[in-house]
Order: sequence, then structure tokens, then C-alpha cells
Amino acid sequence: MELQREPSKASTDTLVHTMLWNEKVIEFNMKINYVLPQLFLCIITVLNYVQSDPDPLQDYCVAETRNTHNLFHNGQPCINPDLALASHFATSALSKSGATGNQFGFNVTLTNINNLPGLNTLGLVMARIDIAANGLIPPHSHPRASEVTILLKGSLLVGFVDTTNRLYTQQLRPGDSFVFPKGLIHFLYNIDPVNVALAVSGLSSQNPGAQISSMATFVSKPPIPDEILKKGFKINSQDVMRIRRNLGG
Amino acid sequence: MELQREPSKASTDTLVHTMLWNEKVIEFNMKINYVLPQLFLCIITVLNYVQSDPDPLQDYCVAETRNTHNLFHNGQPCINPDLALASHFATSALSKSGATGNQFGFNVTLTNINNLPGLNTLGLVMARIDIAANGLIPPHSHPRASEVTILLKGSLLVGFVDTTNRLYTQQLRPGDSFVFPKGLIHFLYNIDPVNVALAVSGLSSQNPGAQISSMATFVSKPPIPDEILKKGFKINSQDVMRIRRNLGG
Amino acid sequence: MELQREPSKASTDTLVHTMLWNEKVIEFNMKINYVLPQLFLCIITVLNYVQSDPDPLQDYCVAETRNTHNLFHNGQPCINPDLALASHFATSALSKSGATGNQFGFNVTLTNINNLPGLNTLGLVMARIDIAANGLIPPHSHPRASEVTILLKGSLLVGFVDTTNRLYTQQLRPGDSFVFPKGLIHFLYNIDPVNVALAVSGLSSQNPGAQISSMATFVSKPPIPDEILKKGFKINSQDVMRIRRNLGG
Amino acid sequence: MELQREPSKASTDTLVHTMLWNEKVIEFNMKINYVLPQLFLCIITVLNYVQSDPDPLQDYCVAETRNTHNLFHNGQPCINPDLALASHFATSALSKSGATGNQFGFNVTLTNINNLPGLNTLGLVMARIDIAANGLIPPHSHPRASEVTILLKGSLLVGFVDTTNRLYTQQLRPGDSFVFPKGLIHFLYNIDPVNVALAVSGLSSQNPGAQISSMATFVSKPPIPDEILKKGFKINSQDVMRIRRNLGG
Amino acid sequence: MELQREPSKASTDTLVHTMLWNEKVIEFNMKINYVLPQLFLCIITVLNYVQSDPDPLQDYCVAETRNTHNLFHNGQPCINPDLALASHFATSALSKSGATGNQFGFNVTLTNINNLPGLNTLGLVMARIDIAANGLIPPHSHPRASEVTILLKGSLLVGFVDTTNRLYTQQLRPGDSFVFPKGLIHFLYNIDPVNVALAVSGLSSQNPGAQISSMATFVSKPPIPDEILKKGFKINSQDVMRIRRNLGG
Amino acid sequence: MELQREPSKASTDTLVHTMLWNEKVIEFNMKINYVLPQLFLCIITVLNYVQSDPDPLQDYCVAETRNTHNLFHNGQPCINPDLALASHFATSALSKSGATGNQFGFNVTLTNINNLPGLNTLGLVMARIDIAANGLIPPHSHPRASEVTILLKGSLLVGFVDTTNRLYTQQLRPGDSFVFPKGLIHFLYNIDPVNVALAVSGLSSQNPGAQISSMATFVSKPPIPDEILKKGFKINSQDVMRIRRNLGG
Repeated sequence: MELQREPSKASTDTLVHTMLWNEKVIEFNMKINYVLPQLFLCIITVLNYVQSDPDPLQDYCVAETRNTHNLFHNGQPCINPDLALASHFATSALSKSGATGNQFGFNVTLTNINNLPGLNTLGLVMARIDIAANGLIPPHSHPRASEVTILLKGSLLVGFVDTTNRLYTQQLRPGDSFVFPKGLIHFLYNIDPVNVALAVSGLSSQNPGAQISSMATFVSKPPIPDEILKKGFKINSQDVMRIRRNLGG
Repeated sequence: MELQREPSKASTDTLVHTMLWNEKVIEFNMKINYVLPQLFLCIITVLNYVQSDPDPLQDYCVAETRNTHNLFHNGQPCINPDLALASHFATSALSKSGATGNQFGFNVTLTNINNLPGLNTLGLVMARIDIAANGLIPPHSHPRASEVTILLKGSLLVGFVDTTNRLYTQQLRPGDSFVFPKGLIHFLYNIDPVNVALAVSGLSSQNPGAQISSMATFVSKPPIPDEILKKGFKINSQDVMRIRRNLGG
Repeated sequence: MELQREPSKASTDTLVHTMLWNEKVIEFNMKINYVLPQLFLCIITVLNYVQSDPDPLQDYCVAETRNTHNLFHNGQPCINPDLALASHFATSALSKSGATGNQFGFNVTLTNINNLPGLNTLGLVMARIDIAANGLIPPHSHPRASEVTILLKGSLLVGFVDTTNRLYTQQLRPGDSFVFPKGLIHFLYNIDPVNVALAVSGLSSQNPGAQISSMATFVSKPPIPDEILKKGFKINSQDVMRIRRNLGG
Repeated sequence: MELQREPSKASTDTLVHTMLWNEKVIEFNMKINYVLPQLFLCIITVLNYVQSDPDPLQDYCVAETRNTHNLFHNGQPCINPDLALASHFATSALSKSGATGNQFGFNVTLTNINNLPGLNTLGLVMARIDIAANGLIPPHSHPRASEVTILLKGSLLVGFVDTTNRLYTQQLRPGDSFVFPKGLIHFLYNIDPVNVALAVSGLSSQNPGAQISSMATFVSKPPIPDEILKKGFKINSQDVMRIRRNLGG
Repeated sequence: MELQREPSKASTDTLVHTMLWNEKVIEFNMKINYVLPQLFLCIITVLNYVQSDPDPLQDYCVAETRNTHNLFHNGQPCINPDLALASHFATSALSKSGATGNQFGFNVTLTNINNLPGLNTLGLVMARIDIAANGLIPPHSHPRASEVTILLKGSLLVGFVDTTNRLYTQQLRPGDSFVFPKGLIHFLYNIDPVNVALAVSGLSSQNPGAQISSMATFVSKPPIPDEILKKGFKINSQDVMRIRRNLGG
Repeated sequence: MELQREPSKASTDTLVHTMLWNEKVIEFNMKINYVLPQLFLCIITVLNYVQSDPDPLQDYCVAETRNTHNLFHNGQPCINPDLALASHFATSALSKSGATGNQFGFNVTLTNINNLPGLNTLGLVMARIDIAANGLIPPHSHPRASEVTILLKGSLLVGFVDTTNRLYTQQLRPGDSFVFPKGLIHFLYNIDPVNVALAVSGLSSQNPGAQISSMATFVSKPPIPDEILKKGFKINSQDVMRIRRNLGG
């Protein structure tokens, strides 16, 4: 597999690279039968990227990720530029496939300011997308980024819905690219029942963010009141409880 | 009622001010028992606004809304500035309550470049929000704007979900304001079973856009394949069909 | 009155919500006959808002307003996002009318990063505008924001002047909205000799700022040299002294 | 004189290079005793520039200034890039001193998209400022730009007022530079009773715009109602009439 | 090969996908021994992309690439949004390897507004980079974009030079990513003497642009005067002539 | 000389005002026969400016240049606004000619946040350019700014190369201005064999940055591998060594 330097290890790779809010990366060693509900909240955040950020005000601003001063900003501070190293601008984070043994069957790994501090302030990230056979990245949106995906391997059905609820959908073959405009709900579905799919995306922000529509509405913490979900989806209380439970809420 | 100049007419007002994509405003005269599925697609688009737009490059750029040249741009062209009138900067569009006799029980009217052409290029809109007793603006997001709402009358439960699926929710009394950050799913629910609620919002874009999560996923045109909704919401085919039908799809 | 939860208290409300530079809010308990010249400098700053700010780089950046590190930035730092509360996104700051017993007869209260820290980085504010009978918000400009005003109660004559000195003016009735383009001199005058006016504005910046033309030129600290004011307004030394004195300089 | 190629002609130069709204340049041949009120409205617009414009989306977008299609935009369209010439990027517009024989005694000439079409979309302009002995650029603001001035010849008293009405003022000698932050009222006064002053400014917009505070308030067309000026400046009706008349309104 | 749907055809693929200024794509059928000097000017432009563009003002603005009105703008106009098709958001442009049989041994194919009109206004592009054995993308810069590259196949030595002339360089293995900050000179060199390298880049602009340092200085049309190149590179006239000739000037 | 207050001292002025990365200004007292290679790296950085920066979020943000907290940001923090002085907005940095006794014969002095802290966040700088007789500012680019130059004294041949390698060049006389679009390679050559040239530039960023093409490619630290320079410039190893040595590498 192209993106893996040690393909023999890839099939047993059980790391899910996730990105929590504020760019904290957490790695889970987990087993498939251990797929706890909380995991999915993390997976959702895997997609957290950024778009149309402010312009850089210097050549680079290598992210200072230790936050020894306990200060938080819009964006991330830099290290002393005299201490910048070539390694701050390189990462192997996307070289390994992420574990897709979870309820939706997908994994997204991002270059972010933790694994690639040199991209701080530069306004884009790259993402590696692994989707299991018949796996799905469910309908979701990025609050701060547009996305262009190129399919490297496998077969995907992708699409987005505009604000008039019109759906634009295409089936992609390897080498095909597709655009997801900023902030609009979109999905990527591996229609192949046997083979995994592998794609790479560019996103137009340093921290795009992601919200899976079903997760954000049904398994938020605390939960959105039942009455709102019943009215919003035209379902009954039993439906709300069942969907919540199924989604791990 | 404060926002209405002719309160006696307000209760029989049957206009729903909606904004279609590309800023075309359509007014419906409709009856409650006529609430066709197509209507809701329109209601969704009622919320279409915009944020963090480019800076204006002149004092004002009064929107040229006739498009006699059949040209479309990122944003809207201007009329000849010599022809600008004071009336281009004023509107009564928000003075009347919108009809809330539809499936969710809400109406949003925007100042947009059609009813207020002078705000073209200026990067914000105002919205009037009417919500019937126990009415709901269902979970939705604005792809291009943050929003600040001030409740003028009634009682609202409002909230938004961040990209880690954490819910921030508050109950508002008249005079209270609440912030919905850019691109995040949020809702406004009238918890009063008797009285309508009235609110005014500012949104940080000339064309914020809106996607109601349930409508964008279940009643898009064409529909998102069942398989994707079943996997995304952990429901079965019957559920998908039922939700679609209930939402008017 | 719509925006007040305790209308009986409203008429005796003597709080003027003001916003000093760098977002510090100071509340005065004052009496009308105490209206000192210094007050008006504060009132002027009441209008301090912001437009076309940089994009947010995360879901939200709740303003850290204590500045324990004595550090100042372009904009405001955030609190630790793990400590964000729903109350950071809500405020009752606009629920009460401000005291208008001052030389111009107006009061502006803003949602700012002190009373509503959740709007930090989101690029807009809301303002509540109270104008006494025949009160005036004198010609002023916002260096960093466009403004859309909706009149809730009363009657206003509003207008702005463009950079060719052309005036655009309209008389507003309740429910009417008006646009003031970014950085241009504008005014709001309550033409009703008996009743107060109440309006709500959205402004396209987190910190729009405001300069009242007469105050900035005649009562700055230190004063602009007489020679410049005499030449600039084609008046004599006595006029300069008299206007200064009248404006409280 | 440094900026003039034909210094012998400079002293009799009677051209005032002015820029009207929407970038139309008009050249007046006028005599000092002909200084009509209308002139000053033009002079005010002389200062019309721009800041923090959108980024260019191509190498250059040489302004198409003929507008054969009668279309107006936010900014200016380009010519066919294949037709771009080196001369589109060069101008001698700032080589000659402007006529300062008018009521304030100053002249500002800008590089704009008419005399220098190659700067379209690039987000800055340069200005040549000539101020007669004891001449004044009266208190004014640029709605869309910050400004940095470098004094080439003579002696200037400059200053700006911030939104708390604090004045920052300095006396400049040749070679000194001064900053005027975006949108704030500022002035430049030639304190030398004998010699002219010559300065060059950079402004952070393609079309900064300018409003002279006294002109925008007292000689707008149509005029701002007397009542508003009386209340705003704490003067009486006679004062309003006199100032209007003196300023040429 | 991952990115190719018909690998058997890939080895004989002789198309060089190039992008000329103003987004015009030209495809050459060429032979290696036909590699004319003019070609390299085209190859240079292959790298033309864009960064930190203005925000979109609507859901999407599918590029209108026919220009029937002979109008040019900052960016590209849209088609009527009612005519948008799913195919406007998809492309196979990156599925085939470009011909690398030219003087430097590389080919870059971009998703641009011609082969992928749906990305107009969205502020990013993707690029497919093919580099022959020991081929080189010579030191160049993108005037309007930062870039993140992920190596899919082969082995690359990459690096950039900052504005203090400090070099940051790394050797990449498949799956490794590297960041090139906006506007800085960088290179990608295939250190493998036998195998081609394949990489995918995201660039933070709709039209990044590219300038190869050697080509822009030595083979511009018309040429930069010899005197300037001699002084700038500390070489003699013979060197200038020889480098020009070698580079195809 | 216009820009010098003490012309008698000007001819013996041996200060080169340079700006290192991250805005640190270093002043060298040096002799012409001491012109060490390292100097030129500094001279290159002299040109470091910036364009299309984020908008200011307050009236001004006077740069805090002491960095007592050892914190680095995208841009520079401010001092406490209560401590701002008029002198923070003024500088004499451009009043003296810089020493041009170095290998290229030019000197650029910038207003930057060290010598003029008040321009922090305002998105532009001014530059004073001194070029010795037959001196050259070699082909270079500014990664973050467009530039407009006005020639005050002498005679210059200027030009820029676009991304299709087309050269736009003009000969300037005093008073002429020329535009260099953002990020494109350009040069300024004093064609006069006897007299110095003096120019002033505005640049559309607080920290434009600069890369001299020959220096960035041939004398970076560490050096770009010979193989890459040989292939990129079509020269041999001896050429690489000779150019490196000549340029002081």
C-alpha cells in the first residue's frame, strides 16, 4: 500500500489517530470488541480541521504546543523562530492506516499542529482517510473549511447537500477528486463490500473542525432534550432513545 | 407588538418571507392545511445568510439584483453608485411577523440584498425570528456565519453543539442574548405552550446560509441513499422511509 | 417594554453601560444633575465595536478578560476551552435600558467580550440603543464596522454621509431597518418630542469602535490646537472655546 | 524639487488631481479666486483610498476602467491579462505638485486604478501630499485604510484621535514618518508660515476613501438637518448657517 | 499505480497537463526529442495555484470558464447556480501521470477551475506531482499559497529557504508529508536514480502561481538585461548567455 | 537631500538598518572593506515586509518588542494601551541614507514594529531605498506583500516577472511610481553610473519578507545540494562553487 512504509504491520495497526478540540492528539490502543460509545465522539473529532484563516505574519510560526504559560489564543503561539528545525515541517503521521474497526468503519488522520507544528498559521491541512469495506464517513460538515478529496484506492460514493437541500453525488474511482464546499453536509461511503478505500484530502484551514450530523444531534453531552429531537426529526420518544443507544449515547 | 406597525393585521399575516439560494426572495400565500413538502425546503433556506466576507472596496455597493447580463459572481454586483438612493439602505422587511403555520412552527425573515440592497458587501445581516407556541427552529448550522440572538418577547431554550459534541444550552428571557459560533449545529425552541416568541439576530455574513440537519439528510433532492442514512443514524429502512415521509420528503 | 424583564424598574434605571478601550466595562451609578464632562467621553466609547475581523481558528475562544499575565494582543486571548460554560455564551446586558440623562440624550449598550465572552473572535456584536425624546446620537463613525439598525419602538431620523459628502437619510418607523456602511459618518435622531426610541443594531466586528465627530475634534485630550479647528471648521477662537466648553471639554 | 521633473512648471501648476467615488479621476483647471464650494467636495474625495482588501487571485488584474458593459462590482474588473503592458504598472501622476490655492490650502494626488491600473486588487496606494504655507488637511478619516506618512520637505504638525478621544500628536521634520491607524480622525498642518510642505503616504487599501469631519457634517448634499448639528456641536442656528456658508455649503 | 485507473496506459501517457496564467489549461502531445524551450515556460506555469483567497459568499460558485462577455475579474465568475451539476465538483484530472520527459524531469497537474469548476472561490487546490528518476522540481515559489506535500511513492529530498536564507531540508519516504510556507523558495528532488516519485499536494489558494527562480530570472520574455543578471548572480556575460541557452531561453 | 535632516553627516553615514526575521533590528557600524559575506544575508532580510494581514481588532496595538515572557505569536503582542505615547507612532528611521558600500550597492531601511511600534497590526510599512551609482537590488520577491515604489531622485530601471515568465520593465524618472505585484520576482537597477538613486516604497504588509533569488539559492545555510543547483540552473559544479564564492557563501 502506497502510503505505508511497513505494509506488513499495517493490517494489525490498531491506532486511531484522533484530534481533540484545541489540537490535542490522543492515541488509543483499542480492540474492536472494545469499541465504547465514547470512542465515537473521538472519531467525530478526527475530522477537526480549518479554513480561510488569517494570513501568516512571518515566514513560519512553528506551533508551541506545550503551553507552559497556560495561555490560549485564537490559533496557536509559535516557538522561538531561532529554534525551528527541519523536522518541524515534516511528519510521518499519514503514513499508517488508521484502525477502522468501529461503528462507522472509518478513520481520518490529520496533519495538525501537533504532528506537524510547521503548518501553524498556514491555513491548510492534509488528511488521510481510511474506510473499511462498506464503511461510511457519515453525513457531517466542517465549520471552518472546504475540502478536496482524491481517491487513491478503492471505490467511493461521495456527495454533499447544499442549503436548498439539493444533493450533488458522484461515484469515484482511483485518481478521481471531489470538492466539498465549506460548511456543507457531506458523506463518503465505501460501496465496495470487500476492499478498503484510501483517500487523501486537503482542507482549507489549520483547524477545520467536523460535526457528524447524527452524533451531534443524538449523542451530545449533555443530550439535546428529547422534545427537540422528536420535533426536529418527526420521530417519537422510542425512536430517540433507540437512536441514542445505537449511536453509543 | 413592537416590531409591527399594523398589529391588527399581524395575526392574519400569511406571508412567509423566504430566501432562496442566490438571494432570490419568494413570498408564499399559503394555508396551514396546504403545508406541502416543498415548503419546508423553502423554510430551511429562510435561514440562508453569510460570514467573514471580503472587505468592501468602496463606500457601498448597492446590489444590482436584476442580473440583466446573466452573469453570476462570488457575491453580487452593484448598481451605478450615482443612482444610489436612501431607500436602498432602508427596509420594512422585518416589521411584520412571518407565518409560523408549518411543520416546525417558525419563520425567519432576513434583511438580504433583495429587500435591503445597500448591505451588499458589508458582511452582516439582521434576521427577525418568529416561533409559534412550542415551535422549534430545528438543529441547523450556518456554513458562513456566527450568530448573536436577542430575545424580544417570550421564552426560548437555545443551544449549540461543538465539534466534540458538547452541548451548551441556556433558557432565555426577554432581553437575553446568546451566541452561536460559526458553522456549529444549534437550535431555538419555544418552551412556552401558549405564547409566541420573537427574537432578532445579527449574523456575520451577507449570505450566511443554513442547513437543518434532519432536512438536509432525510429530504434532499435527490435523496441520500438509504444505506447511508441507515448506517449514519443506526436505523432501519422502515425508519428512513418514515422519517422521510414525516419530514415531507 | 419588550426588552425589559422588570419594566417597573426600567424608568429609574440609572446604569450606563459603557465600554472603555480594550473592552473594560465600567458601570456608573449617576444622577442626571451629575452629568460631568468626563462622562461623555465614556459615552462615546460606548459605541466601540468591530468589523471584518480575522476568522476564528477553533469552535470558540471564550475571552480571558482577567489578563493575569499583563499581556495584550490584537484581539483577546481565550480561557482554557475545557472550562467553557453555557453562561459564557449568554448575557442579559441588553435587557435593561441605559440612562439617557446626559448632554446628547442617548445610551448604547453593547454585547462585548466582557459581558458576553463567548463572542470573542466571532466578528460581530449586538447593541441596544436607547434615545430620549428628541435625543441624538450625534454624527459619528465606527472605524472597524458596518452597522444594521432595526427600530423596535418610537421614531428615528437616521442618515449617513458618503465620501463625496452625499447624505442618505430616512425616517424610520418601528420594524424598519437601516444600513450604515463601514467607517462612514452617521447619526440617529429621535424626532419624537415625547417618547423614547429603542433600537437594536448588529455591527460587523468584535470591537467596532466609535468616534463622535464633534467630540473627537473639540474635546480630545489633549485638545487639538485651536488653529486647526479654526481653519478646519472656518470658525474663530471664541467659537472654538465656546464649542469646547459646551461639549464639556 | 525631488518629485518634480519640470520644477519650473511646478509653481504654476493649476491641476488638482482628484478622485471621485468609483475611481473616476477628474482634473480641474481652476483659478484661486474661482474656488467654488463644489470644489471642496472634490478635494475631500482626493483622499479616497482603500485598506485590508481581499487577496489577489492572480498575478495582477490590470483595472478595466472603461466599463463598456455598465457593470459595477465590489472592486474593479480587469483587462484581458494578455493585453497587460509595462506602462499599466507605471505612472507619473505623483511627479507634479497639486494646486493648493483653495480654502484649506492642500492637495492630495493618489496613485489609483485610473492613473496606475496595475495596482488593482493589490491592496495599497501611494499618495503625494502638498500643503501650502500654513495650509491644513483638516481632521478627516479614511473608512478603509491605515496610513503611514513620510515628510519629504517642510515641517508638519500631525496627529490622530483615538476612540477614547485621546490625541496623539507630533511635529515632523523632513525624513520623519507618522502612522494614522485605520478609520481614526487625523490631521496634517503645515506650521511653517512661509514654505510649502511635501509628503508621501502609503495607504493600506486600493480605495481608502476620506471624510473631512467638518465638510461631511456641515456641507453634505442634502444638508444634515440644523437640529442635529446644533445638538451635536452644541451651537445655535446662526452658527450652523455661518459654518455652512464659510465651508462653501 | 494507485492514482491510475488504467495502469497499462500510464507508461505511454504523453500528456503534460499544464495551466497557463488565467487558468487556461493546455494539453500538449509531445515527444521527448521535441522538448522545445517554450515548453519549459509552460511547465513552470504548471505549478500555478493560490492561497488565502476571499471567503465564498454562497454555497458554491461553479466557475464560468467560457467568458462569453469578455470580462475579467479578480477570480472567476460563476455559472447560473441552477445549472450546477454533480460533475462540476468531480474530476479525473489527477488520475493520470504527466509526461516527465523534459529538461527538469517533472510534471505537475492541478485541479483548477477548468478541470474542476466547483472549486472556484473555495480557496484551495490539489496537485499531482510526478518526478522522473533523478528529476527535479527546481527551486521555485508560489506567490499566493502555502503547500503541504504527501509522498505516495518513491523517495524525495525536499526543502525550503526562509527569508534569512536558512535552509530547511528533509528526505521523505512514502507516507511522509512536508510543509512549504507561503511565498518561500522550495524544491523537490527525486534522489532515486531508477524509480519515479509520485506525490500529492494541497495548496492554500485557488490559483497559487509558481515561479522557478532560474527560469524567471534567465529566460523571461523579454530577457532581464545581462547587466542585472551579472551583478545579481556575480557571473560574467558568457555565463549569462550559457545559462540562458541551457535553460532554453 | 530631502530625506535627510543633517545632509552634512549623510555622506559619512555608515549605518545599515537591517531587519532580521521576527522584526529584530540590528545596526552595524561597519567599514566598506569589512563587507563580510554574512552581511549580505542581513541585507537580504532588510527587505522583509508583509501584506494582506488580519484586520486590527482595536484602534492600535503598539508593538511590545521586549518579549519578557518569551512568547511568540503570529504577529506581535501590544503594550498596555494606556501606556501608548505619540512617539510610538513616529520615527526618524527613514531620515538617513543607509550605507550602500556592499556587494550589490543598495540599502533598504524599513519602518517596522521596532522603530515604529505603532504600525503593528495595521498591515503596511514604508521603506527608504538608497541605491549607489550602478547599484542593484537584485531579482527578489516579497512572500507577503505587493509594493508601490516612487522614485524621488536619480534614475532607475525596474521590472517584475510574472508566473508565465513575462517581464514588465520600465525606466523611472523622479516622481514616477511603479507597482510590483505580491510574491513576484522584481528588481531595481540604478542605471546612472555617477549618481545615487533614492526611492520610497509602500508595502502591503507589516512584515513583507524578501528573498533575493541568487542568495536564497546559492548561499543558503546549509547550502542547497550542488546537484539541485546544477540541474536547476543548467550549470556545472565549478559554476556552482564559483557563484557561491562570489556571492559570499
